[in-house]
Amino acid sequence: MLRRRNEGSRTMSIDLTEETITAEVQKTFDGAADERTREIFVSLVQHLHDFAREVRLTSEEWFTAVDFLERVGRISSPTRQEFVLLSDILGVSVLVDQINHDGGAGSATDSTLLGPFYVDGRPRVENGSDISGGVPGMPLFFTGRVVDSTGLPVSGADVDTWHSDGEGFYDVQQADKLHGELAMRALLHTDLDGWFSFRSIVPRYYPVPTDGPCGEIIRAAGRSPMRPEHLHFRFRAAGCEPLVTMLFRGDDPYLEQDAVFGAKRSLVADFADHEAGETAPDGTPMTEPFQTVEWTFTLASARR
Amino acid sequence: MLRRRNEGSRTMSIDLTEETITAEVQKTFDGAADERTREIFVSLVQHLHDFAREVRLTSEEWFTAVDFLERVGRISSPTRQEFVLLSDILGVSVLVDQINHDGGAGSATDSTLLGPFYVDGRPRVENGSDISGGVPGMPLFFTGRVVDSTGLPVSGADVDTWHSDGEGFYDVQQADKLHGELAMRALLHTDLDGWFSFRSIVPRYYPVPTDGPCGEIIRAAGRSPMRPEHLHFRFRAAGCEPLVTMLFRGDDPYLEQDAVFGAKRSLVADFADHEAGETAPDGTPMTEPFQTVEWTFTLASARR
Repeated sequence: MLRRRNEGSRTMSIDLTEETITAEVQKTFDGAADERTREIFVSLVQHLHDFAREVRLTSEEWFTAVDFLERVGRISSPTRQEFVLLSDILGVSVLVDQINHDGGAGSATDSTLLGPFYVDGRPRVENGSDISGGVPGMPLFFTGRVVDSTGLPVSGADVDTWHSDGEGFYDVQQADKLHGELAMRALLHTDLDGWFSFRSIVPRYYPVPTDGPCGEIIRAAGRSPMRPEHLHFRFRAAGCEPLVTMLFRGDDPYLEQDAVFGAKRSLVADFADHEAGETAPDGTPMTEPFQTVEWTFTLASARR
Repeated sequence: MLRRRNEGSRTMSIDLTEETITAEVQKTFDGAADERTREIFVSLVQHLHDFAREVRLTSEEWFTAVDFLERVGRISSPTRQEFVLLSDILGVSVLVDQINHDGGAGSATDSTLLGPFYVDGRPRVENGSDISGGVPGMPLFFTGRVVDSTGLPVSGADVDTWHSDGEGFYDVQQADKLHGELAMRALLHTDLDGWFSFRSIVPRYYPVPTDGPCGEIIRAAGRSPMRPEHLHFRFRAAGCEPLVTMLFRGDDPYLEQDAVFGAKRSLVADFADHEAGETAPDGTPMTEPFQTVEWTFTLASARR
């Protein structure tokens, strides 16, 4: 005969109905060793079930959803973060950012999305370096300063920056063309007075990738896939809260249609135009048009 | 200078807050060509956002969730449906089944989960065939009848059946051992009086796969991964609603702890024990113990 092992005494109702199943599933998390895990899954189950009941989800729609998630999984890779994009286009990423950076005292620079293009293995460079990696484009000179909530300079801060080229593509999207080299990204450090600077090229607005499953949602919704032009920054400094943010330009046609909901008026900077013949901030006499941007980033004091 | 294209006039508020972002994301589905698509995404966004606000989801937890989904994607394959399993262990699969099969007139056999082990390419066999594929185990003789809601026999119905072996493993989980051959599954057809029958082996209760990301949830929750012993069936017949169901045994130690919430009292069958020396339903004199199961399945009339 078959051996039967009677493990555990916790039982549940069977013959569950559309109404009773939610509480029964939630009860199966009562034994979680971590209370936060229990709290998250009880809420997740409630809202997933409420969603399915509210729209009367059909079996065909459920199959479509499972197939969609499988396809998101298949296209995903370290340089193609389609689950991040899914979270981005549903506004979840920005919402989580807002939940965790609720403005506080209001003096700190606003945060926004990390996005899918941050790369850990970026080169560390000295202030003033050209980080364009030789990618052609209109020269951009960036001068930044990092201060704390009292306005004092933050020296030795880690400053990550990354951005697209003049066609709207990041280095990792053009591995073939760039022979796998990283470009338009770097890790810098603020000097004793909190300053940092680099030369690169002017980025451009661009569509989020629409050749994968998330593109289907964008097309089905009749939405614009465009993100306004921006520069990414990530700051880490002793005694301060980390900051992930972007700078946008005020005259961008997509500023108020950001496909991932990340644009903020408080992060609109002046991308100043300069003519050929003018002198760059680093003293270089320029023979072509270029742009300059200056910005002061204020970091919140570390909590606790 | 950079060319700027001003496409579309729909704009949204920027400077979104934790409270205003949900409606702004929902508005981006206003242009959906299909109203059902709009309805589903508006509700999905509402519940995803409500969940994140309710638990005050941290950035670290969001990263954990993205990483979890990426890992579910990586382990998934045509024979390892981890997204289906995720839906199953969160009770979503059974809920969707309940939403779409709410009992109706009550005369039809209850439906339950399809599960992750159905395989399209199963062999078609004659009634009475041995479908065990030579896998060793206690012989099982199944005799079924399919009737419509008025009790009249349904002839020529497609009958799919599939089940585990005596250790709780399906053929697709043992591709090495079975050299990729399918076993313990078949497509049969009912005869003129609605009968179908097959010989196989007695299945066993088993754990859902816990070596992937879903196993982490089961362990974190301190839940049992076990499913009670069952036989799967899927019926399709002209003039009738399709039916996906399972049969369970009443004395199963896991009947009231089903890890995927699919067990129903109405689907408990009698797995009758027989001694060596008795005669099988197909007339075979048996030299070893065996079991027999009989069941009548009632299909609902096709809607419209």
